[in-house]
Amino acid sequence: MPLTPEQQADIDDLRATPNQTLRVVAPGMEDHLYKAYDVLDHGFIRVIDYMGDDNAICQAARVSYGKGTKHVSQNEGLIRYLMRHWHSTPFEMCEIKLHVKLPVFVARQWIRHRTANVNEYSARYSILDREFYIPQPDALAAQSTQNNQGRGEVLQGAEAERVLEILKSDSTRCYDNYEAMLSQDDQAGLARELARMNLPANVYTQWYWKVDLHNLFHFLRLRADAHAQMEIRVYAEAICKVVADWVPFAYGAFEDYRLGGATLSGKALDCLRRMLKGEEVTQETSGMSKGEWREFEGVIG
Amino acid sequence: MPLTPEQQADIDDLRATPNQTLRVVAPGMEDHLYKAYDVLDHGFIRVIDYMGDDNAICQAARVSYGKGTKHVSQNEGLIRYLMRHWHSTPFEMCEIKLHVKLPVFVARQWIRHRTANVNEYSARYSILDREFYIPQPDALAAQSTQNNQGRGEVLQGAEAERVLEILKSDSTRCYDNYEAMLSQDDQAGLARELARMNLPANVYTQWYWKVDLHNLFHFLRLRADAHAQMEIRVYAEAICKVVADWVPFAYGAFEDYRLGGATLSGKALDCLRRMLKGEEVTQETSGMSKGEWREFEGVIG
Amino acid sequence: MPLTPEQQADIDDLRATPNQTLRVVAPGMEDHLYKAYDVLDHGFIRVIDYMGDDNAICQAARVSYGKGTKHVSQNEGLIRYLMRHWHSTPFEMCEIKLHVKLPVFVARQWIRHRTANVNEYSARYSILDREFYIPQPDALAAQSTQNNQGRGEVLQGAEAERVLEILKSDSTRCYDNYEAMLSQDDQAGLARELARMNLPANVYTQWYWKVDLHNLFHFLRLRADAHAQMEIRVYAEAICKVVADWVPFAYGAFEDYRLGGATLSGKALDCLRRMLKGEEVTQETSGMSKGEWREFEGVIG
Amino acid sequence: MPLTPEQQADIDDLRATPNQTLRVVAPGMEDHLYKAYDVLDHGFIRVIDYMGDDNAICQAARVSYGKGTKHVSQNEGLIRYLMRHWHSTPFEMCEIKLHVKLPVFVARQWIRHRTANVNEYSARYSILDREFYIPQPDALAAQSTQNNQGRGEVLQGAEAERVLEILKSDSTRCYDNYEAMLSQDDQAGLARELARMNLPANVYTQWYWKVDLHNLFHFLRLRADAHAQMEIRVYAEAICKVVADWVPFAYGAFEDYRLGGATLSGKALDCLRRMLKGEEVTQETSGMSKGEWREFEGVIG
Repeated sequence: MPLTPEQQADIDDLRATPNQTLRVVAPGMEDHLYKAYDVLDHGFIRVIDYMGDDNAICQAARVSYGKGTKHVSQNEGLIRYLMRHWHSTPFEMCEIKLHVKLPVFVARQWIRHRTANVNEYSARYSILDREFYIPQPDALAAQSTQNNQGRGEVLQGAEAERVLEILKSDSTRCYDNYEAMLSQDDQAGLARELARMNLPANVYTQWYWKVDLHNLFHFLRLRADAHAQMEIRVYAEAICKVVADWVPFAYGAFEDYRLGGATLSGKALDCLRRMLKGEEVTQETSGMSKGEWREFEGVIG
Repeated sequence: MPLTPEQQADIDDLRATPNQTLRVVAPGMEDHLYKAYDVLDHGFIRVIDYMGDDNAICQAARVSYGKGTKHVSQNEGLIRYLMRHWHSTPFEMCEIKLHVKLPVFVARQWIRHRTANVNEYSARYSILDREFYIPQPDALAAQSTQNNQGRGEVLQGAEAERVLEILKSDSTRCYDNYEAMLSQDDQAGLARELARMNLPANVYTQWYWKVDLHNLFHFLRLRADAHAQMEIRVYAEAICKVVADWVPFAYGAFEDYRLGGATLSGKALDCLRRMLKGEEVTQETSGMSKGEWREFEGVIG
Repeated sequence: MPLTPEQQADIDDLRATPNQTLRVVAPGMEDHLYKAYDVLDHGFIRVIDYMGDDNAICQAARVSYGKGTKHVSQNEGLIRYLMRHWHSTPFEMCEIKLHVKLPVFVARQWIRHRTANVNEYSARYSILDREFYIPQPDALAAQSTQNNQGRGEVLQGAEAERVLEILKSDSTRCYDNYEAMLSQDDQAGLARELARMNLPANVYTQWYWKVDLHNLFHFLRLRADAHAQMEIRVYAEAICKVVADWVPFAYGAFEDYRLGGATLSGKALDCLRRMLKGEEVTQETSGMSKGEWREFEGVIG
Repeated sequence: MPLTPEQQADIDDLRATPNQTLRVVAPGMEDHLYKAYDVLDHGFIRVIDYMGDDNAICQAARVSYGKGTKHVSQNEGLIRYLMRHWHSTPFEMCEIKLHVKLPVFVARQWIRHRTANVNEYSARYSILDREFYIPQPDALAAQSTQNNQGRGEVLQGAEAERVLEILKSDSTRCYDNYEAMLSQDDQAGLARELARMNLPANVYTQWYWKVDLHNLFHFLRLRADAHAQMEIRVYAEAICKVVADWVPFAYGAFEDYRLGGATLSGKALDCLRRMLKGEEVTQETSGMSKGEWREFEGVIG
């Protein structure tokens, strides 16, 4: 459980005090506000604020497309049309602010998504907590033998134990030494901005992360994907759940057109057309490389 | 008055229906929601939605600066500190969505601020209304004789009348012809995406514009400035008023440190130090060019 | 011909003076530098500068993927892999700077691509030239009867003549009046920043536009598409030609995976799999809306 | 020395092979191309490519300001004018690509500058080298007693030794264990994407970083500042040196107006005016808080 009793009491307080507003309200999201959803061993995501709902997407689209869209009577149909045709700006009209606690090596991947606002806990100002990500045994995977950036089989028995032992003992030792450098009887203590460099990348940090729905979908498409590293994918999946309740039509369209969809090349489309006409197409006659063909088979198989 | 009775009724409806939310509410902003504030002859700004308040800025800052800022008991002091030291990310945690109606030549300046989300009324899909910006007589300024991009004296009498007459008659004629090209008895009518090219830059367009508070302040600093073109400055000033009610501490700091402040060069600071010690400094002994010296005198004079 | 003799002489000068550099050089691009390629009746694109080539993309990718990519012996294969798997950052390592002359209504679409650097000719400082886009007769299309934003049949005979006559005479009249407002015997002349508002959207402007290759590809995918307005598509097509000579491997991958490819939804993929197994699938049994099914048929037909 | 003999040979090769180009060349920058400038104990910066020079800034400005700037005969004067009046877009027309080797905790600060392109060495694909930042003894500062994020006195004697001993031994141990987890006799070895989490934040990474001159100046203003952490400031200072040779006029203006300048608030300007008229102003009569007053005294003192 990543929350202290004080933190839980704060959340309960915030949830006990409804306010009146004239703004658009997304009922499905109100239910999630402030609550911490556990991710990994000490992490979480919490929705701190949001702006807009499915209807706000349509409203913005109708500013753009004006009288011409009056006949689109159904919001869901309009939203699916926008998603299908890459009309991204109406989705930018919704915004979400999350509080996320996550290991540093996950934060380093996450921050590469540049179109977002971030306030991270600063280890120059403050002392980090003694919290480290130690994988569950079934997450201790070997290097993939096929994929340079992926995982293969789960480690077993003695090897798994050895690895867990290393991660735990190095985390403990590095944090003990971090504390020891920060202060010592009768000594000044090393500056926090220097002492932090002794902490390994599985130490937890936290931040506020604010992003519009279009850019969030882009993040989720890449990070909820099966090829993403598991430790960031679980954050993406937790976010997917709250987004599905926030903007159900938009999330449904995202699931169908992005998460569940696939982009086929001109060559792949050409093969498809031949196959649909009854021709037997092989990698050799496809014009594709072996890698492309394997991926193509994965999509249509 | 830029609103139709139907539009006013929509606004009244929206304002008559409060919702419950667990989110942060800015009472000063609730009062502005949806209302149209007139700008120029047919334009307006309206707040459609917002996220956050002064407190949300501090909350985000405290994530960053953690325990180290616990002693900052006053939100206003913290916000002034953040503004003074260019800590911009906490201000990015607030967001505003505006509906703006504005002449195309103003929209073309405005859109240069890239870090924002925009949905503009599309003249490919829809027909633009017959609304054109015609300046008030006291806004009909001559070209400045000193400043390549500025205005000088107000035009008088016959010249002012001649200019107004041109603007009115060309707007009318171009719009008549726009309509005539769009449809004609027994004829197909030119595609909207082509017909629009006949409309001059004083025709009104409209858009939804969403931006975070940091980038909004940047926009306001440049566009509420005395050197900005009057026709965009009046929009910036109308926005300043609602922002002052939304985040009063942040707006106060912005007024003091940005709108009312000035950046001095190393050379200018050097002159200042000499002057404070009693030395008489002239342009010749300042090391500054004539232009710089004139601007420096404007700041300290 | 959009260039004056002075402009052509400048270009000839620039092309006559090679310099020595230690930087990467793309021979295919050197051939295009500075030359003006005509677009529409008075517009052009010109390459002013560029950074990087196909090899620079691979070099950046190898920083990312380090020793793991040593076995990728072929640059083309690596580039196709990066494009297929949406690894966009290596493509951002190439940059191009264009000088573009284009009608204002095209510029208004173009500028919506925010991740780029722009310096546009300022009509606050300077006087615009008397140059307007007047479509060729075969570009005078009627509004599409099927598509709210598209074009249908080409206008014929009297209607075409009428439209051309309007566009020409309104352009001429508006420009005459623009000039008349700017200066008049014994009068001050209206400020340029005001007088410009009388010019219709087919007047030409120009700008320097600098963008990285990844964002350029995004622009080209949307604007070289058959659904883009013809008047911006011709610019995109002119840019495609120089990009093909600049980074031939990257452009080839872009053509196959983006321009010639298609994104299929989860529902569409499901239908495909059923069809490949011999099942007859109709719109009714597809789970797709009529619009989606029609587009699906367009892709596989 | 952070380079291997192979790396040095590569650099020598690249520098031995000049190419012909029609592009603009900045002679001061050609001299720096590819060379590695040492920063910290194992880091460096290297210029890999660049686009534009001082003249390219002026050329872009003259597109914007057109005929109106013809009388600005001097490039330096124009560049100083642009910098003084926050006309940032012409500076965006220059671009630089750097190869940087830096400790992870520095990279984490650096990446917060979002308007840049980055390809970082991926520890999912590849194995990081055994290189860690160990501060020089005179950089081992205690926490500041006045500033929550700063450094105070340098640690002495036994305390300094203790800290260095910790940093060295933890780095060594963590790297030994990183290697041990990656492979072991008869065992599969942990996936690289997991093993990397054992490495502390002083391990070195490297990346290609590409940025335009405007955003680079923004980075340098914040990171070459006396309040920046020393370990990133030394990178900023090394970059300042090459920029000064690349665009000497722009860099000179940047030094005067940004690095050497200061922004004064409305309250501070008011005090200044009173002081210049001979009034004695104290903190109590200034309207400023103690913190603001102290900073104000620092600027004018």
